[in-house]
Amino acid sequence: MTNHHHDSIRAVEWANGALKLLDQRLLPQQRTYVVLENARDTAQAITDMVVRGAPAIGVTAAYGVVLAARACYARSSTTWQGDIEADLDVLARSRPTAVNLFWALDRMRGHLAHVSGDPYEPLLAEARRIHEEDIAANRHMGQLGAALIAGSSQRPCAVLTHCNTGSLATGGYGTALGVIRAAYAAGKINQVFADETRPWMQGARLTAWELVEDNIPVTLVVEGAGAHLMKQGAVHWVIVGADRIAANGDTANKIGTYNLAIVARYHGAKFMVVAPTSTVDMTLSNGTGIPIEIRSADEILNHTGTRVAALGAAAWNPAFDVTPAELIDAIVTERGVVLSPTPQKWPI
Amino acid sequence: MTNHHHDSIRAVEWANGALKLLDQRLLPQQRTYVVLENARDTAQAITDMVVRGAPAIGVTAAYGVVLAARACYARSSTTWQGDIEADLDVLARSRPTAVNLFWALDRMRGHLAHVSGDPYEPLLAEARRIHEEDIAANRHMGQLGAALIAGSSQRPCAVLTHCNTGSLATGGYGTALGVIRAAYAAGKINQVFADETRPWMQGARLTAWELVEDNIPVTLVVEGAGAHLMKQGAVHWVIVGADRIAANGDTANKIGTYNLAIVARYHGAKFMVVAPTSTVDMTLSNGTGIPIEIRSADEILNHTGTRVAALGAAAWNPAFDVTPAELIDAIVTERGVVLSPTPQKWPI
Repeated sequence: MTNHHHDSIRAVEWANGALKLLDQRLLPQQRTYVVLENARDTAQAITDMVVRGAPAIGVTAAYGVVLAARACYARSSTTWQGDIEADLDVLARSRPTAVNLFWALDRMRGHLAHVSGDPYEPLLAEARRIHEEDIAANRHMGQLGAALIAGSSQRPCAVLTHCNTGSLATGGYGTALGVIRAAYAAGKINQVFADETRPWMQGARLTAWELVEDNIPVTLVVEGAGAHLMKQGAVHWVIVGADRIAANGDTANKIGTYNLAIVARYHGAKFMVVAPTSTVDMTLSNGTGIPIEIRSADEILNHTGTRVAALGAAAWNPAFDVTPAELIDAIVTERGVVLSPTPQKWPI
Repeated sequence: MTNHHHDSIRAVEWANGALKLLDQRLLPQQRTYVVLENARDTAQAITDMVVRGAPAIGVTAAYGVVLAARACYARSSTTWQGDIEADLDVLARSRPTAVNLFWALDRMRGHLAHVSGDPYEPLLAEARRIHEEDIAANRHMGQLGAALIAGSSQRPCAVLTHCNTGSLATGGYGTALGVIRAAYAAGKINQVFADETRPWMQGARLTAWELVEDNIPVTLVVEGAGAHLMKQGAVHWVIVGADRIAANGDTANKIGTYNLAIVARYHGAKFMVVAPTSTVDMTLSNGTGIPIEIRSADEILNHTGTRVAALGAAAWNPAFDVTPAELIDAIVTERGVVLSPTPQKWPI
């Protein structure tokens, strides 16, 4: 297996004293970077989906705190720890569903309370640790998740994934796509089906690109083809990431995930959620409390700037849905795997 | 209710001695007509989806036979009834799944055997009858289907539909969309959710347009939002058309229909199929024998002529799927309604 891709592409990078984001709205046609110098622009970039994917948003927010601290400290070396709260608020309001964002802000906030003197280097070091720990978690989850897949090089199977959960959605390597990479390297799978993932087409634009770069065979399907595909019997696992997992295992993820979980159960295909523990929200007993972001109707009514739907049509554009724990066969975290999560078994 | 739309828009029309098709690939942005003078161009227009929708394809093919007969008779008034078979074959090969195509060809073939002299007027009259009978069937199905919906003007409900099954997909008025029109006129529903229907976006482009023209409130959702939408409890019925219904009630329809049927059953929403009896194929005991058209991967890999997926990615593009009869709560035809179809109750 080549792995030049996930070693060479970074969605989020700290470079030359600034935050550098690969603009994922333009991929794979254009590889353009956005350089951010302050927290407010960072928050806007998250809102506008320059960067997306729960772990990548968390890493981005951590670096955003570094930018905020640098600016606040430059303005006042005595009040910066209070002044920074306004920037933390702006970052926290950038997107509502992925809890990794709040987890990263909390972790950075906890760290900055202990900083004396110039916060730049210690906070940058903490943000880098968050970033590196995420990559390490992904690598470990890749092994844990791949071990669940029963395919072998004699009898490899196919899997289906949704949205993008790879290097682009994380610090690097990927959650669900990390499992797919590890399982492919182990010869357990020989084919990845990726659905397009409307309206942002993360499957068509991002997942297909990452897999092609890794020489892993990828076949796109429209989301409507999920059930027909599973009926053919080739798909043994549906493997997805998560934006927030409640204390009972209910999982918020990209809109369309819940559809797939229902359809997988109907066909006897297994359903795996792969997410670091930074995605777990122990303050919510179940998924009903997870705030679901409703994005602009224009994302559905227009395509690449051109109106598609008739004037007068409305659109409802929830960005996420919640898959109940009962439809999940395995939750894979860097701390271990829970099979058929129940409140008794989960969190690990 | 205004109904200027379905009275004024015709997807298929016989005008000035030629077949005039509204080019549905360009809707709703452009209203362009394609005028066809012979059977081969008609077949190509069906293949290329200038016209789509099982009943509309049937009506188009019937007029295509008129074009074929006129040309064959002009070449030879003695051998035309044999010569026309080549054109009938070309028409029959235009698309494989919608059985209305073969039904219309068979009906026209049966008629031309009895023609003596110039076949133009008698065959045109037969094609017009097929066309008018389809509209009448739709009107009748609209009433039958609407009667199944329990909503009232005091307590109207919402429905979800897939693809386009309206005036554009039929001779006029529509199958599933005909039921929706009738139910809206009766005050039983107050909101129509339409999913986009990748890859051709018939929901976003065509269904939204037809409903806006009729002043029926329409809200688009991505296909992935189906389960999340149903979880909100607003959708009482999922209402779809059909491209072929087997003798046991198994129903082929636009890819994504089977997904919706599974998800509807999971949430307790009802699932209605609306199709004229020309969509029923009694030669197939169940849905496994229905040929599913696999269209070009380019329809998924490219959007409006621009490559979206990374080079090297493949795509699998089945145009239809099969919903098993056990997931269908009602099949509505112009001859009546079958609730919970089983081989014992269906066909009516």
